[in-house]
Amino acid sequence: MKLPVSTEWLLHCAASLAQLKPGDTASAAQLAQYFDLPAAYLAKQLQALVKAGVLSATTGPRGGFRLARPTSEITLLQLVEAVDGASSPYECREIRQQGRGALPAEECRTPCILAEKMAEAHRAWRRSLAATSLADIVAALPPSAPSRTRLRLTGPP
Amino acid sequence: MKLPVSTEWLLHCAASLAQLKPGDTASAAQLAQYFDLPAAYLAKQLQALVKAGVLSATTGPRGGFRLARPTSEITLLQLVEAVDGASSPYECREIRQQGRGALPAEECRTPCILAEKMAEAHRAWRRSLAATSLADIVAALPPSAPSRTRLRLTGPP
Repeated sequence: MKLPVSTEWLLHCAASLAQLKPGDTASAAQLAQYFDLPAAYLAKQLQALVKAGVLSATTGPRGGFRLARPTSEITLLQLVEAVDGASSPYECREIRQQGRGALPAEECRTPCILAEKMAEAHRAWRRSLAATSLADIVAALPPSAPSRTRLRLTGPP
Repeated sequence: MKLPVSTEWLLHCAASLAQLKPGDTASAAQLAQYFDLPAAYLAKQLQALVKAGVLSATTGPRGGFRLARPTSEITLLQLVEAVDGASSPYECREIRQQGRGALPAEECRTPCILAEKMAEAHRAWRRSLAATSLADIVAALPPSAPSRTRLRLTGPP
């Protein structure tokens, strides 16, 4: 059970964009340089966040990415699920209904108790990630972090 | 983020073994037939549960698998982690320390706040699975289930 490597990239990119001044943007190239990541692949991943409505992309000479919503309204869950989707890691293929031990259909109207418990754990994971917003992340950084982030991310080379 | 397909198999196999009479065993072939699963591959997966100390394997003509511990002492977490390992789905490669935005080492003595939050979610997931034992699963089945399971799993063809 593994999240894509790009999950770390996008969490950090979003947390960095959360430190820009309202309206400011950073390009994929700037973000790639800031974290020393492969620019083309990062750009593709950032588009997933745009598609999920977490980032906005602007075009033109000063174009780039910025958060599409206030930092308090973007949770870690939204970011992680933009990268990896929202489906549960556990797949129930209803093996209780196959083979010599197959249960009759009338006993399978409710979900399998094992699938239920696995879904419950997935809900606990989602709840935990939904409880933290980008605003919480930025609030946990040292007070000097945002100005340094802005300078190194979008400042002159 | 996906658990192996065999996770469902092993949860169901363990829940079925939990319905046998103390000391009784079922072979990999019996379990494979009970759920219509590929026997050789299932046998290999069952060995992972033996290695994890969840099942015992006995050899000989009446040999097979049984639970290595009381049903109340085997949790869904132990079963899932026997199949898939215990590592977190999120991998932190410390990209905060690389690139133009690299943080100085002295600011990285504590774990990254993003990695912390991801670990917190993983702990919530683990806690949820650790809260359910095989005894809880068996208790949730209809009262008639165990005798039917025993008959179809280990009874005459």
